[in-house]
Amino acid sequence: MKNDGSMINAFVPGQGGLTENESRLVERRAKTLGPAYRLFYKHPVHLVRGEGVWLYDPQGRAYLDCYNNVASVGHCHPRVVAATAAQAATFASHTRYLHETVLDYAEALLATFPAELGHVMFTCTGSEANDLALRIARAATGGTGIIVTETAYHGVTQAVSGFSPSLGEGVPLGEHVRTVPAPDPLRLPGDLGTAFAAGVQAAIDDLTRHGVKPAVLIVDTVFSSDGVFADPPGFLAPAVEAIRKAGGLFIADEVQPGFGRTGSHMWGFQRHRIVPDMVSLGKPMGNGYPVAGLVLRPEVIADFGAKARYFNTFGGNAVAAATAMAVLDVIRDEGLQQNAATVGAAFRAGLADLATRHAALGPTRGAGLFVGQEIVANGDPMAAEAAEAARIVNDLREEGVLISATGPRANVLKIRPPLPFSLDNLAFFLDRLDKVLARTSVKSK
Amino acid sequence: MKNDGSMINAFVPGQGGLTENESRLVERRAKTLGPAYRLFYKHPVHLVRGEGVWLYDPQGRAYLDCYNNVASVGHCHPRVVAATAAQAATFASHTRYLHETVLDYAEALLATFPAELGHVMFTCTGSEANDLALRIARAATGGTGIIVTETAYHGVTQAVSGFSPSLGEGVPLGEHVRTVPAPDPLRLPGDLGTAFAAGVQAAIDDLTRHGVKPAVLIVDTVFSSDGVFADPPGFLAPAVEAIRKAGGLFIADEVQPGFGRTGSHMWGFQRHRIVPDMVSLGKPMGNGYPVAGLVLRPEVIADFGAKARYFNTFGGNAVAAATAMAVLDVIRDEGLQQNAATVGAAFRAGLADLATRHAALGPTRGAGLFVGQEIVANGDPMAAEAAEAARIVNDLREEGVLISATGPRANVLKIRPPLPFSLDNLAFFLDRLDKVLARTSVKSK
Repeated sequence: MKNDGSMINAFVPGQGGLTENESRLVERRAKTLGPAYRLFYKHPVHLVRGEGVWLYDPQGRAYLDCYNNVASVGHCHPRVVAATAAQAATFASHTRYLHETVLDYAEALLATFPAELGHVMFTCTGSEANDLALRIARAATGGTGIIVTETAYHGVTQAVSGFSPSLGEGVPLGEHVRTVPAPDPLRLPGDLGTAFAAGVQAAIDDLTRHGVKPAVLIVDTVFSSDGVFADPPGFLAPAVEAIRKAGGLFIADEVQPGFGRTGSHMWGFQRHRIVPDMVSLGKPMGNGYPVAGLVLRPEVIADFGAKARYFNTFGGNAVAAATAMAVLDVIRDEGLQQNAATVGAAFRAGLADLATRHAALGPTRGAGLFVGQEIVANGDPMAAEAAEAARIVNDLREEGVLISATGPRANVLKIRPPLPFSLDNLAFFLDRLDKVLARTSVKSK
Repeated sequence: MKNDGSMINAFVPGQGGLTENESRLVERRAKTLGPAYRLFYKHPVHLVRGEGVWLYDPQGRAYLDCYNNVASVGHCHPRVVAATAAQAATFASHTRYLHETVLDYAEALLATFPAELGHVMFTCTGSEANDLALRIARAATGGTGIIVTETAYHGVTQAVSGFSPSLGEGVPLGEHVRTVPAPDPLRLPGDLGTAFAAGVQAAIDDLTRHGVKPAVLIVDTVFSSDGVFADPPGFLAPAVEAIRKAGGLFIADEVQPGFGRTGSHMWGFQRHRIVPDMVSLGKPMGNGYPVAGLVLRPEVIADFGAKARYFNTFGGNAVAAATAMAVLDVIRDEGLQQNAATVGAAFRAGLADLATRHAALGPTRGAGLFVGQEIVANGDPMAAEAAEAARIVNDLREEGVLISATGPRANVLKIRPPLPFSLDNLAFFLDRLDKVLARTSVKSK
């Protein structure tokens, strides 16, 4: 099975090392949830409490969370929890009645987008948002072709899993899906924007030769599962131009980079000075409450709106809206986007410093608090070291630090802590990483 | 546009009668949410508070909720709200860490099912549950054919909207989808089980003739959008036998009838003395919190589990599990299934009594607190009166009672109040309905 990065370090049953209590939980999981569920780490983490950037096990051991982008404003943020509880106790129903909360939130959310993006529709998950984007794009373009990157992940519905190649060979791609090389500056020749667009154009040409009209190019604007690619800013623009010229739409999947994480902007696409046709939102939107959405240019929904309607029972319910509003408020009031920029820059500088002493650290990438760190052999940026990346992830877990790994070669450390991550937290992380790297068997420089 | 029943009484902009404040909310909706959203009623209801079976507008006017099956144990139930708030303040993360809450809930939920149904997988919406069921069924059977009833509604993803014909002609059916006549005792000849199974067999034969292997027969076990069909108990069994004989699976969609609503049983399929291969759950599961799931026979997931994995970021998160557990506890501790049986029986008796005086009331159907009431001309059960049904729904809204209408002829009143609905609430409903029926222009008996 190929991976989507998040499963590189999956627990394998029967390998030992678990406490009696952990073993019992693993057994109960297998019995009730069945064979399709996976746990992180060789030694799964049993968690019972979260607060800010910290997670705790039943013995009170603390884990520094450098991975979870859902609890984006901090685990169990009191202001968000209070908003959820207050609205749930007052009114919790759906969008077929008039109610202010969903409109207040919709207006506040749209105010963070360029003026061209005038509507928002609410779903419960990023998968549903991308699935809806596809339905709307098909209606708007009359096309069915879908272009994604080679290790993309966009969700788990029947349609969206069909354009999420990172799910592996056990999950078939849809028949009108084409994959293109990720914008990897180590592997694409010449100007990155030109090279990436050339891949997209080749996919467009291939679809056309097969008689398939292109509907969408959809990318995660920080290319999380492809290995984290953020630089140089602007490299996405030529590819967006290519899909539009072919009559297709450009969808920015902001489920991972969105809501201030990239530091310089609220949304990952803004880094590229483009305005997408649709933008899908998810994970951090409700700090754990299941709320997601699709922001779009009004002209894109005209055809769909004329012949279909959209109702998602829980999507945009009053509690979802109140919760998501609290998240927006906290991002603004606590300066979390700025914090992501500041601490993110220090993060990359700290890794660069460690790299002078550890040959396993190749190029560092990312933006704000979305960090990708290549693990390589002998300081050679092209010599991917998946086994060493897995060792680092698992050893860090034993040191009380949670991260994961990603990318088609499974050798890119994926680091994306909650946004209130501080310089002190960073110092803790770098200290533990230094310690773990010192145990490497990879040859030093 | 055809309807799924719930949209028969949709608001049409520009028809007047709105207050200044309501008009402003309608404008804000159109501007932010766009053209695919719909409001209930000619005169939309502006709601700000819910408690038990009552909803309130900003002026404090009370509406008796006889429609919302999401807030199934009562709007803003304090015990459910407390469970949500407590878990959200403690730990809210996902299923890739070990955590007790999701396992405690999974075990409690599975205990309400026949022993053959041994696994549960968690999603956020009923749409996602049915979408996952399709993916699993395709892996398990190697087939792609899907059989549904003529006015079925199963959800809004790309794949599931393709087998939800009630969404209307603007939403294309999938290419391997076949529809069969609903089990309408007024319109199918002879024994209902035999007649319904004959339709399913015809669809199987048609798929086979087209070289398509059947994968699933999926039905809402109370046939909500087809017009509400519950009797005689057992009529589903021959159709289930037919799809299995053809190598396909039977999926019970319990998003609407599930969690005790039908009174006699916890699950609608139990009324038919069958054990499905998969059971999809949704709306009432979290009393408004976005949680849904798929219960299945372990042998059905074996193929999917061997080649794919399933992760839904918010699905089965700790807050979802704690909330859903509180809902199960409330159903048991407050005797809500029994209440649905008792008050549901009184409901049908009360309607039968009204029918002796109002020729617009045709056959009453349903089970427990899921009631379908045909509105007809001159007491003729075959003479569907859609306009009169719409008038009744809108007039009841003016009288402070919320219901809707459903079915392919849009003439079946759809009544499904929160489960704590009392005999006093019923008396209030019948009084208002009596009053509204007295204004009819339909000829009396």
